[in-house]
Amino acid sequence: MTNHLDALRDIVGAANIATGSDCDKWNHDWMGDYHFSPLAVVRPANTDEVSRVMQLAHEVGLPVVPVSGNTGLAGGTYADGAVMLSLDRMNTIREIRAESRIAIVEAGVILYALSTAAQDHGLLFPMTFGARGSAMIGGILSTNAGGSNVLRYGNTRDLCMGVEVVLADGRVMDLMSELHKDNSGLNLRNLVIGAEGTLGIITAAVMKLAPQPLAYATAMLAVPHLSDAVGLLNQLQKITGGAVSAFEYMPKSYISRYLATIAGAKPPFEGSHDVNILVEVGATAPRDATPQDDGSVPIVSLLETELARMLEIGTLRDAVIAQNDAQRAEMWARREAAAEVTSAQQPMINNDVCVGIDKVETFLTTAIARIQAIDPEATDTCVSHLGDGNVHYIIFPSSADPELRDKLVETVEDVVQSLGGSFSAEHGIGLSKLPSMRRRKDPVALDVMRAIKAALDPKGILNPGKVIPR
Amino acid sequence: MTNHLDALRDIVGAANIATGSDCDKWNHDWMGDYHFSPLAVVRPANTDEVSRVMQLAHEVGLPVVPVSGNTGLAGGTYADGAVMLSLDRMNTIREIRAESRIAIVEAGVILYALSTAAQDHGLLFPMTFGARGSAMIGGILSTNAGGSNVLRYGNTRDLCMGVEVVLADGRVMDLMSELHKDNSGLNLRNLVIGAEGTLGIITAAVMKLAPQPLAYATAMLAVPHLSDAVGLLNQLQKITGGAVSAFEYMPKSYISRYLATIAGAKPPFEGSHDVNILVEVGATAPRDATPQDDGSVPIVSLLETELARMLEIGTLRDAVIAQNDAQRAEMWARREAAAEVTSAQQPMINNDVCVGIDKVETFLTTAIARIQAIDPEATDTCVSHLGDGNVHYIIFPSSADPELRDKLVETVEDVVQSLGGSFSAEHGIGLSKLPSMRRRKDPVALDVMRAIKAALDPKGILNPGKVIPR
Repeated sequence: MTNHLDALRDIVGAANIATGSDCDKWNHDWMGDYHFSPLAVVRPANTDEVSRVMQLAHEVGLPVVPVSGNTGLAGGTYADGAVMLSLDRMNTIREIRAESRIAIVEAGVILYALSTAAQDHGLLFPMTFGARGSAMIGGILSTNAGGSNVLRYGNTRDLCMGVEVVLADGRVMDLMSELHKDNSGLNLRNLVIGAEGTLGIITAAVMKLAPQPLAYATAMLAVPHLSDAVGLLNQLQKITGGAVSAFEYMPKSYISRYLATIAGAKPPFEGSHDVNILVEVGATAPRDATPQDDGSVPIVSLLETELARMLEIGTLRDAVIAQNDAQRAEMWARREAAAEVTSAQQPMINNDVCVGIDKVETFLTTAIARIQAIDPEATDTCVSHLGDGNVHYIIFPSSADPELRDKLVETVEDVVQSLGGSFSAEHGIGLSKLPSMRRRKDPVALDVMRAIKAALDPKGILNPGKVIPR
Repeated sequence: MTNHLDALRDIVGAANIATGSDCDKWNHDWMGDYHFSPLAVVRPANTDEVSRVMQLAHEVGLPVVPVSGNTGLAGGTYADGAVMLSLDRMNTIREIRAESRIAIVEAGVILYALSTAAQDHGLLFPMTFGARGSAMIGGILSTNAGGSNVLRYGNTRDLCMGVEVVLADGRVMDLMSELHKDNSGLNLRNLVIGAEGTLGIITAAVMKLAPQPLAYATAMLAVPHLSDAVGLLNQLQKITGGAVSAFEYMPKSYISRYLATIAGAKPPFEGSHDVNILVEVGATAPRDATPQDDGSVPIVSLLETELARMLEIGTLRDAVIAQNDAQRAEMWARREAAAEVTSAQQPMINNDVCVGIDKVETFLTTAIARIQAIDPEATDTCVSHLGDGNVHYIIFPSSADPELRDKLVETVEDVVQSLGGSFSAEHGIGLSKLPSMRRRKDPVALDVMRAIKAALDPKGILNPGKVIPR
C-alpha cells in the first residue's frame, strides 16, 4: 500500500494527497449516516492526472470513489479503504458562449459558481437545490440531480450536451459535444450521467443555459382537493404558455410542523387548508415582464386575473400573490425549510419517491393507511415537487426499531410499485437504496446493468458496491 | 434452415411469415440503395411472440433485423440472409392520458396515427417529418428521429418516458416508466433509444405529449448575413418567451433550384436573397392566440411589430408573414420539397451533419472552398434546421466516380470534425455511415460501444454489422 501511496503522490503532488486524519473533511457523508476510513484522498489538477490515477488503480486493483461536493443523500461517497478522487481542484469555467447558450465547465465547478457566471451573461443555469453552494457539476451529473425547476427545465441529464469521462482503466472518452443533434452510435453520455461514478469519472461537461426570466409571478394557492391539482397546473400552463417553473405541494401537516419548528414562521393563509401549493411562473418575454404605467407587471396581472376567476368559481379556496421580492422569498423559505422541519422530530424516515403526476393523491392516501395498519401511532407528512410527481414522503414511526423501519420502507415501496412509480426519484441509489434496488427494479434491467458494469469496469474498482446490487 | 422457418411459423402463425418473393415489400430500403434477400419476414402480434422469436434466434444463432416503417436513410434494415422482425401488427395506441400528457403505444403505431390521436385530445405529439405517414414509433425511437421541431421539443429521446425492450436472448426488459424523475440505476432507456436495434427490440413506449398550439405565426425572413441568424433567433425567442418551434435556413442556391424544379413554385420574396429563413412560432396561450376585435391574432401582431422594427434598422432585408393557412402551407411546402429539389440533379451527395448553431456559416464557407479545391466544377446547396445546427448539406460533384464521392464525403467530415461537429445529425449510422463512424468517432467511445454490444448480444444476432464498426 505504501508503494501505491507513493505512486499516487507522484501523480498529483504531495500537497494534493491526504491520508489519515487529514481526510477528516471527506471521511463521512453529508448526513452523517456513514463514517469510513479512506486509504487516501487525491486531488488531481486535470484530466491527465485523473487518467493516470485510474491507470494505476486499474493496474494494481485499487478501488476508487469519486467525490465532488459530497452533498449526496444516499451514501454514494462511502469509501472505506478506497482512494477518494476529489474533483475540487478542477474548478474552471472554461467558456460561456452566450449566443449559443452553453457553458463548458470542469467537474469541480460549484453549482452556485456556474449559476452566477450564467447570470453575468444574462442567462440562467436552471438547476437549483439546497446544497447549491457546495454541490459540484461532476456530482450533479453523476447523480442526475433534480430539484424544484425540473417541471420546466428537466433534470441534470436534460441540461447536459457533452461530457468528458475517464474510464476505469484510465482511458479518456471524449464526448464533449455542443450539438443539439448527434446520432452517432450508442448514447454513452446519458449512460454515464446518473451512474454515480460506477462507469467512469466525469471530468468536464458542456451544459445548457436558458434565458434568464425577467420577472416572476409567485403565489400560494389553497386547493380543495389534491386531485384537482393536475387540472390546476394544466390550466396555469395554458394561460402562461408553459411558463410554470415550480409547482410545489405542502399539506396541512407540513405547514403545522413548519409553524411549530421555525422561529418567526408565518402561515401561508389566514385560515388553515389541507392542500397548499407554491406556484411560480418565470416570464422571459419583455411584454410579460415590463412594468406598465400603473406599476403592474403583466405576468403578475395575468396570474391575478386567473386566480380571481378560480376563487369565484370555487377551484381555489384561497390565493396570495407575492407583491415583492421579500414576499416571494418568504414563500420559498417555507418550502426550503423542509429538511429542518421534517428532521425536527425523530425518528423519521425520508422516502424520495415518484409516481405519475395524476397518482400522487392515491399514493398519499394509500400509504398512510397501510403504514398505520402496521404502526397505528405513526404519522406522516411530505413536501412534493407535485409538477413532476416527486414526493419527499416522511414517516414518523412510533419507534426507531430497525425492523419496523424496514417494514415501513417496504410498505411505501409496495404502494409506489403498485402505482408504477419509482422508489428513487432524484436522490439516486448509492449505498442506502441498494436493498430497494434489489427488491424493486426490474430483474432483467438489473442483469443488464451488471453486464454493462462488468464490461466497462471488469476489475470492479469504480465506486465498488454502489448502485447495482450484487 | 427449414426447421428454423417451421419454428418461426409456429410462433407467429403461417399467415404472418413471408419468404421468397413474398418479402418484396421488405427486401430493400426506402431510398433503393440496398437490395437484399431476407431469410424470412416474421410479423409477431405481441411482445410475447417477439420474445419467443428472439429466444429461438438466440438458441440457434439466427441474425434478426427489426423493421417498422422502413423509411430510414442509412440502410439500417439491410437483412441479407437474416430474419426481419416487423413490428407492423403491434399497432395499438393502448392509452392516452390527457391530463398527464402521455401516450402509451406499441412499437408499430404509425407516427401520423399518434399525431392524430393526440390532436383528438387537444394535444400535440411534436415529432414530424416527411415520412410521418409510414414511419412507426419503434423506428423513430430506434433512430432517435429529429425533424423540424427539435428546437422547441427535442429529439425523439426527449419525447420518451419509458420503453419495453426484448433483449437478444428473448428476455423482456420492462422500463415502461411514466415518471418525470426516476434515478434508479443506469439509464438503460436512453441507451436503447438510438441504438438502431443493435441492443434490443423496442416493443412499446410511453411518449410525452405537449399542448397543441392554438395559433401559429409563420414568416419568411431575408437576412443580410448567415452570421446574423443566431442573434435573430435569440431575439425572436426573447420576444415570444421561447415559443419558436422552427427556424429553417434555405440559401439562394436552394431557392433557385426549387423554382426550377417544382411546377408552380413561387419565390419567397420579390427580390432574391442569399439567406432565407422560415420561422414559425406556436402560441399555446389563449391571450396570444385569440383573435382580437379587428381580427388580428396577438402572436402574429407581435411578430409583425418586431419584424417591422428589424426591417427599419436593417437587421432584415425583407419579411413576409403568412396571413392564412394557405400561405403558411406554401412556406412549408417550399422547405419540405427538399428531397425532390436536391435529387433532381444527379449525381448528388447528401451529408446529414451538425455543428454548433454559431458555426453553421463557417462550416458552409469552408466546406465549399475545400470541395472545389478537389473538384472545381462541383456545386453545393443545403437546407438546414438552423435552430439546432443540423445541415443537410448537398454536393453536386462533377462525376459519379465513387473515389471522388468518398473523397468529398471525407472532406465534409474533415470540416465538420474541425468544428467539433457530428457526421451524423439525425439519420443515424445504419450501414451507410459505418466508414464515417470508424474514421470520426472517438476511438475510446467506439471501444465502449463494442464492449456494451458484446455484453448484451454476445452472439451478435441483433441487427448485425450495423452502427458499430468492427
